Amino acid sequence: MEQALMVLGSAIGAGIAVCSGIGSGIGQGYAAGKGAEAVGNQPEAKGDIISTMLLGAAVAESTGIYGLVISIILLFANPWV
Amino acid sequence: MEQALMVLGSAIGAGIAVCSGIGSGIGQGYAAGKGAEAVGNQPEAKGDIISTMLLGAAVAESTGIYGLVISIILLFANPWV
Amino acid sequence: MEQALMVLGSAIGAGIAVCSGIGSGIGQGYAAGKGAEAVGNQPEAKGDIISTMLLGAAVAESTGIYGLVISIILLFANPWV
Amino acid sequence: MEQALMVLGSAIGAGIAVCSGIGSGIGQGYAAGKGAEAVGNQPEAKGDIISTMLLGAAVAESTGIYGLVISIILLFANPWV
Amino acid sequence: MEQALMVLGSAIGAGIAVCSGIGSGIGQGYAAGKGAEAVGNQPEAKGDIISTMLLGAAVAESTGIYGLVISIILLFANPWV
Amino acid sequence: MEQALMVLGSAIGAGIAVCSGIGSGIGQGYAAGKGAEAVGNQPEAKGDIISTMLLGAAVAESTGIYGLVISIILLFANPWV
Amino acid sequence: MEQALMVLGSAIGAGIAVCSGIGSGIGQGYAAGKGAEAVGNQPEAKGDIISTMLLGAAVAESTGIYGLVISIILLFANPWV
Amino acid sequence: MEQALMVLGSAIGAGIAVCSGIGSGIGQGYAAGKGAEAVGNQPEAKGDIISTMLLGAAVAESTGIYGLVISIILLFANPWV
Amino acid sequence: MEQALMVLGSAIGAGIAVCSGIGSGIGQGYAAGKGAEAVGNQPEAKGDIISTMLLGAAVAESTGIYGLVISIILLFANPWV
Amino acid sequence: MEQALMVLGSAIGAGIAVCSGIGSGIGQGYAAGKGAEAVGNQPEAKGDIISTMLLGAAVAESTGIYGLVISIILLFANPWV
Amino acid sequence: MEQALMVLGSAIGAGIAVCSGIGSGIGQGYAAGKGAEAVGNQPEAKGDIISTMLLGAAVAESTGIYGLVISIILLFANPWV
Amino acid sequence: MEQALMVLGSAIGAGIAVCSGIGSGIGQGYAAGKGAEAVGNQPEAKGDIISTMLLGAAVAESTGIYGLVISIILLFANPWV
Amino acid sequence: MEQALMVLGSAIGAGIAVCSGIGSGIGQGYAAGKGAEAVGNQPEAKGDIISTMLLGAAVAESTGIYGLVISIILLFANPWV
Amino acid sequence: MEQALMVLGSAIGAGIAVCSGIGSGIGQGYAAGKGAEAVGNQPEAKGDIISTMLLGAAVAESTGIYGLVISIILLFANPWV
Repeated sequence: MEQALMVLGSAIGAGIAVCSGIGSGIGQGYAAGKGAEAVGNQPEAKGDIISTMLLGAAVAESTGIYGLVISIILLFANPWV
Repeated sequence: MEQALMVLGSAIGAGIAVCSGIGSGIGQGYAAGKGAEAVGNQPEAKGDIISTMLLGAAVAESTGIYGLVISIILLFANPWV
Repeated sequence: MEQALMVLGSAIGAGIAVCSGIGSGIGQGYAAGKGAEAVGNQPEAKGDIISTMLLGAAVAESTGIYGLVISIILLFANPWV
Repeated sequence: MEQALMVLGSAIGAGIAVCSGIGSGIGQGYAAGKGAEAVGNQPEAKGDIISTMLLGAAVAESTGIYGLVISIILLFANPWV
Repeated sequence: MEQALMVLGSAIGAGIAVCSGIGSGIGQGYAAGKGAEAVGNQPEAKGDIISTMLLGAAVAESTGIYGLVISIILLFANPWV
Repeated sequence: MEQALMVLGSAIGAGIAVCSGIGSGIGQGYAAGKGAEAVGNQPEAKGDIISTMLLGAAVAESTGIYGLVISIILLFANPWV
Repeated sequence: MEQALMVLGSAIGAGIAVCSGIGSGIGQGYAAGKGAEAVGNQPEAKGDIISTMLLGAAVAESTGIYGLVISIILLFANPWV
Repeated sequence: MEQALMVLGSAIGAGIAVCSGIGSGIGQGYAAGKGAEAVGNQPEAKGDIISTMLLGAAVAESTGIYGLVISIILLFANPWV
Repeated sequence: MEQALMVLGSAIGAGIAVCSGIGSGIGQGYAAGKGAEAVGNQPEAKGDIISTMLLGAAVAESTGIYGLVISIILLFANPWV
Repeated sequence: MEQALMVLGSAIGAGIAVCSGIGSGIGQGYAAGKGAEAVGNQPEAKGDIISTMLLGAAVAESTGIYGLVISIILLFANPWV
Repeated sequence: MEQALMVLGSAIGAGIAVCSGIGSGIGQGYAAGKGAEAVGNQPEAKGDIISTMLLGAAVAESTGIYGLVISIILLFANPWV
Repeated sequence: MEQALMVLGSAIGAGIAVCSGIGSGIGQGYAAGKGAEAVGNQPEAKGDIISTMLLGAAVAESTGIYGLVISIILLFANPWV
Repeated sequence: MEQALMVLGSAIGAGIAVCSGIGSGIGQGYAAGKGAEAVGNQPEAKGDIISTMLLGAAVAESTGIYGLVISIILLFANPWV
Repeated sequence: MEQALMVLGSAIGAGIAVCSGIGSGIGQGYAAGKGAEAVGNQPEAKGDIISTMLLGAAVAESTGIYGLVISIILLFANPWV
């Protein structure tokens, strides 16, 4: 029974943790839309716009990755189960 | 009983995890709308706009994929059940 | 009893998982509205606008499909029940 | 008792699953409003606007259908009950 | 007791399922408002605007109908109770 | 006890079901406001605006009625209790 | 005990049901605000604006009334208690 | 015990029911703000604006009153307790 | 025990009921802000603006008062405890 | 045990009740911001703007006070505990 | 056990109560932003803007303080524990 | 057991209490953004803008501090545990 | 068992507490976006804009840090466990 | 059993904690979009815009990192389990 409760908690916790990526998804999609709009207005600045957008999105990605890391740890490097 | 509780937790956890794609869906749809609008204004920059939009959307896709990965792991590579 | 709890968890988990399509639905509908608006303004660019819109919507579709896949797996390829 | 719990879970799961159509409903309604507005501004482009709007809405419909499919499966093709 | 739990689950599930119409209601009302506004600006295009609006609203109606169908099935064609 | 649980579930389910009208209420109110605004700008198009608004609102009403129907069925045509 | 559970369910269900009026309240208030604004701009069209606003608000009222009806039925015409 | 559960359900149900006034409160406040703004722009149309605003707000009040009525019934005309 | 459950239900119900004032608070604050803005633009119409704003806010107050009334009844005129 | 349950219910109920001030806080802050903006544009109308803003905010304060009153009653004038 | 339940309820109730400050925080921050913007546009009216902003924010602070007061009472002047 | 329940309640209550800072965080960030924008437009008014912004933010900070205070009290000055 | 319940409460409380940073994250990101926009418009005022933005963000950071502090206390300086 | 409850609480707490990154994700994505837009308008200020954006995003990152830190502590430096 102990083992079962630990696993139940870890599995649900892993599911919640990876949902920290919801914010990243919304934010990066906003960045993508703004980037496409900007490229449409200044196609000659495409390189600069894309590199800026990707740099910003890469930073926003970080919290999504944190959630993934915690999920993976809960699943495979779980210090208890 | 132990087995049942573990499975119950893993199944619900998998359902929650894949919902991390909600953010990606909203964001990418926003990007698609902005892209279509931009193409309508500058059809001659279509290639640049689409490649920018897809690049941004690909980054936003990542957190949705994280959720999928955690779900798949909980279902098939579940280290406990 | 064990079998029942597993099925209960899997069924509810499948229901939650497919709801990851809510984000896709909102986003794609936004894209459709922006596309229709853009076509109304530049009917001559209809082909370019539609192809851009569909390309963006196809990417946004992905997270909805992830949810469907997890649901189907929980129902038919359920590794436990 | 086992049978009852399975049915309870499946029925509630089916109810949750079909709610994935909320996003589609909002999105398609937005598309319909934007389409009507565009037609009002350019009645001569009515055909193009409607076909674009319907194409986009058809893609957005998909995630609503996914939810219906999972509900139907849970009700009639339920692999367990 | 078994019968009671099944009925309880089915009744609540039916109530949740029909709520998938919330999205349709918001969306179609938005469409109606935009349509009325457009008709006010171009009364001569009334026919085109209404037909576009109704076409879009009909598509948005679909997910509301899905929810009704699942509710009806849970109530009258319930495969278990 | 069985009877009581069935009734409890049906009563709460009926309450949830009729709440599917929230979306319709918001949407139709939006339509009414836009209609009043449009009439204020073009009083001579009052008939056209009202008929468009009512047509759109009638479609949006549908999902509210679905919720009412399910509630009534749960109360009076309840196939189980 | 049976009687008590039925009453508890019916009372809470009635409370939830009448909350379907939240949407109507928001929507009608929006209509009232837009109507007042429109009257301020075209006082000479006051009659037309008010009749349009009231017509739209009357339709939006319907879903609020549905909730009231279900509540009243649960309280006084409750088929079970 | 039976009596206690009935009272508990009725009291909480009454609390939920009167919250249907949240929508009315938001909507009427919006109407008040728009009315004040309109009066500021056309002080000479003050009478018309206020009567329109109050007419609209009176309709929006209705769903708040429904909630009050259900609460009062649950408290004093409760058919069961 | 019976007495305790009744009191617990009534106390929590009273807390929920008075929260129906959230909507009024938001709405009246919006009205206050719009009123201050309008006075800033037309200081000579201060009397008219304030009377309109207060009239509208008084109507919006009503649903907040309903919640207070139900709370007071649950506390002091509680027909059961 | 009876005493304990009553106190638990009253304490949580008091906490919920005072949260009815959330709406007032948002609304009054909106009013403060609009007031500061208006004073910035017409410093000579500062007195009129502030008195209007404070009058409106005082009305909005009322529902926050209702919540405080119910909390205080639950704590010190609690008719049961 | 009685003592423990009372403390548990009071502690959680205190936590909920102080959250009534969320509304004040959002509202005052909005006021601060608008004030800074207004000062930037009319630096010579800085004194008037700040005093207006602080006056409005002080009123909005009140509901946050109500929450603090109830929390403090629940912790130190708790009439029961 | 008594001790444990008290601690459980206090710990969760402390966690909820400090979340009253969410509102402050959003509001102050809004103020910071508006301040930066205003400085960009009038760099010569930097001092005035910053002092206004900080003054407003300091007021908004208060409700966040209330939450911290209640948390600290629950942890270290807990009058019961 | 006592020890276990205390730890369970503290761990979940710590998780909730650190979430008070959600508000800070949204707010600071808004500030960052506004700052970048302002720098793009007035690159010569970069120093002033950045220092204003960072000053405001530092204040907004405070509530996030409060949450961290409470979490750390619950984990390492927990006065009970 | 004690060990199991502690682990269950810690795992779920870790999942909740890392979700404090949702705010950071949304905010940073907003910053990225604004940055890309600004670069599109002033490509020659790219360096200044990016450094401002990254500076702001780095501050916003902090609360996301706090959540990660608490999660890691709950998993590996858990002082109890």
